[in-house]
Amino acid sequence: MPDEAKPGTPPPEAPREDPRLPLTGLRVVELGHYIAAPFATRLLADLGAEVIKVEPPGGDPHRDWGARVNGHAVWFSIHGRNKLSVTLDLRTAEGKEKLRALLARADALVENLRPGAIERMGLGPEALHAMNPRLVIARVSGYGQDGPYRDKPAFGAIGEAMGGLRHLTANPGQADLPPPRCGVSISDDLAGMYAAMALVSACWGRDRSPEGKGTVIDLDLVSSVFSLMEGMLPEYGLLGRVRQPMGAALPSAAPTNTYPCADGKWLAVAGNSDPIFRRLMTRIGREDLADDPRMAGNSGRCANAAELDEAIAAWTRTLPAKEAQDALEAVEVPCSRLFDMKDCVEDPHFQARDMLLPVEDPLIGATVPHPAAPFRFQGIAPRDMVRWPGPAVGAHNEHVFESLLKQEAKP
Amino acid sequence: MPDEAKPGTPPPEAPREDPRLPLTGLRVVELGHYIAAPFATRLLADLGAEVIKVEPPGGDPHRDWGARVNGHAVWFSIHGRNKLSVTLDLRTAEGKEKLRALLARADALVENLRPGAIERMGLGPEALHAMNPRLVIARVSGYGQDGPYRDKPAFGAIGEAMGGLRHLTANPGQADLPPPRCGVSISDDLAGMYAAMALVSACWGRDRSPEGKGTVIDLDLVSSVFSLMEGMLPEYGLLGRVRQPMGAALPSAAPTNTYPCADGKWLAVAGNSDPIFRRLMTRIGREDLADDPRMAGNSGRCANAAELDEAIAAWTRTLPAKEAQDALEAVEVPCSRLFDMKDCVEDPHFQARDMLLPVEDPLIGATVPHPAAPFRFQGIAPRDMVRWPGPAVGAHNEHVFESLLKQEAKP
Repeated sequence: MPDEAKPGTPPPEAPREDPRLPLTGLRVVELGHYIAAPFATRLLADLGAEVIKVEPPGGDPHRDWGARVNGHAVWFSIHGRNKLSVTLDLRTAEGKEKLRALLARADALVENLRPGAIERMGLGPEALHAMNPRLVIARVSGYGQDGPYRDKPAFGAIGEAMGGLRHLTANPGQADLPPPRCGVSISDDLAGMYAAMALVSACWGRDRSPEGKGTVIDLDLVSSVFSLMEGMLPEYGLLGRVRQPMGAALPSAAPTNTYPCADGKWLAVAGNSDPIFRRLMTRIGREDLADDPRMAGNSGRCANAAELDEAIAAWTRTLPAKEAQDALEAVEVPCSRLFDMKDCVEDPHFQARDMLLPVEDPLIGATVPHPAAPFRFQGIAPRDMVRWPGPAVGAHNEHVFESLLKQEAKP
Repeated sequence: MPDEAKPGTPPPEAPREDPRLPLTGLRVVELGHYIAAPFATRLLADLGAEVIKVEPPGGDPHRDWGARVNGHAVWFSIHGRNKLSVTLDLRTAEGKEKLRALLARADALVENLRPGAIERMGLGPEALHAMNPRLVIARVSGYGQDGPYRDKPAFGAIGEAMGGLRHLTANPGQADLPPPRCGVSISDDLAGMYAAMALVSACWGRDRSPEGKGTVIDLDLVSSVFSLMEGMLPEYGLLGRVRQPMGAALPSAAPTNTYPCADGKWLAVAGNSDPIFRRLMTRIGREDLADDPRMAGNSGRCANAAELDEAIAAWTRTLPAKEAQDALEAVEVPCSRLFDMKDCVEDPHFQARDMLLPVEDPLIGATVPHPAAPFRFQGIAPRDMVRWPGPAVGAHNEHVFESLLKQEAKP
């Protein structure tokens, strides 16, 4: 590495800390693979935590996922960013001993191995707390650490299906095509987000209590999805109503839907408040509907939603999506085309908010555009929150094993 | 209220704290309405924080959303749980003064008014930090606190559309029906989750720094959705590829899809590993495909995914979804029907994991089933994390204004 580190390429032997980031000083060990646990730790790393990703000698298989450049998956440039990578063979006594030494010096562990796996290594919560009572242990699994399905393999699609989300992601009466995924690994993402949130909360509570004891947190994909089911559980329990998919419409507001445009693209329109409804109807030349007493108030419009949707679609079909959006925005009707990645990159908003960060990635051998962290903090530029891209497998073995492990254990 | 509070119905004048919960002792004021900010604070409240929800005298309009029992929306029983409700008319000097007094005694504020709204009240971050330098201020908005679209109204559907999710939530070539919503307010939920995570992180950093200064956090719906776009930004930036919707399939694994069953229901199947693929093909009587050299390895199967999907669907169409699931699970092929709420309630997993909690709700006048918090902590039963259901508007005015405000300000 050169002496002068360029942005995004710090020398692996001396990872940078930024004292302005909120979690600077929090040491988190990741025993994760694929998505959920590594996403949790990536968020923690963006927030400033010192995340040590423990990988088998061959690396997390996620490193091979999806499109590659220069032999490296571009997703991992993001998914592994701001982390230190060390390799350990946990089938050997030496590997387990090094992991134990690492955990003796850590604030927290995030793991998403199969339930029972760390216990079989002799590194279950009881053993870890005997060694380091401060350790916060966040465990992510498909179904949780107990219950009848505990030992079933966890797949993101199953979390979505069983948590109730996929049933809802459909057009009513959609008979020929399956309800689509929302296109990303949403159940892993949600579980990872909850793991990060619960872990930091446990650290906050620990560090203000006189005892300073760690805890064990049990996160699962199914509950993470199920937690978003709004009022549907009491609707069923008290009223016997089973929420059915509504396509792109909302169950209790109208008109709000997604409409076809002349260029084959779609426009989402939220016209469901009295003043917006009037402006929308006027713009599409349907003042008659704005004045129609049947359409007075949200409940009237909900009862006649199909008629309103047809009137709006009749207008959107005459224009390309961008023109239809411009026309409605000019009269302050909230709407948006369904952005693909090209739309995002070309939109002034993403540029102005510094959401697309150029990060030099020595593995990829190119400047890789990274999405900014989703949270921004006063006085910290989004680009300062990406300290380095996903590192090579074991890039920080020397730093961690030669220097960090020489430090005293934390407690 | 009776002297002996029943589970779920504490007397509003003496809200219970649970010292075992990680955020007990963290005081958070919510100036929120509808979904994003109130969801952030509900998660914080589940984690033990003392959340004071400030509402206009008429209450958060969310209290009127969706199905009602006894004149009260059942969703709010969940969305408002574990919170204190106070009412303030922020158009009056007295209302603003009381809010200021509250914020002088708080750790954090979560707000999702329009950008600029708290500044116009004289309660912008600068003014608040002059009074309480410790305050962590989390602001949630549609597009963020700056940028060209800052002043546009925020709607969840727009966050989904512009963040890139809705474009992906579709079947390829879906021409007649719009890409559906995933059925819940996902962009609000994600922004709320990030707000909670960033807020606790800021409190952790503040409380271990000698200065103990608060900060301002800017969260927006678009970035929250955009943060889940995996490797799609570098795929476009480096390779010019624009990710297109894949329906229920995965872009880089096969066979994994959702298949139609004899009873009109759907079964999601993840058959995409070498040993699982073989078991799946054997079970459906297609050993020929398991042995077919074209189907060797994931890349071979991806190249022939359509043929595999047709073979699996030909089998699932002959069975009701539950029977097909049982048959595949018997040979350890991960799969799940698309659960609706009735399926969730009837499944042994949800019962065994204590995910469906009976909570007495005096407003609803019934025992309301609540989903458990998505995270569980060692030694704390899920039911202990729901201390009380969403309270009546202003239920805690007396407790907060007569008792809490008599305490010294925190700093």
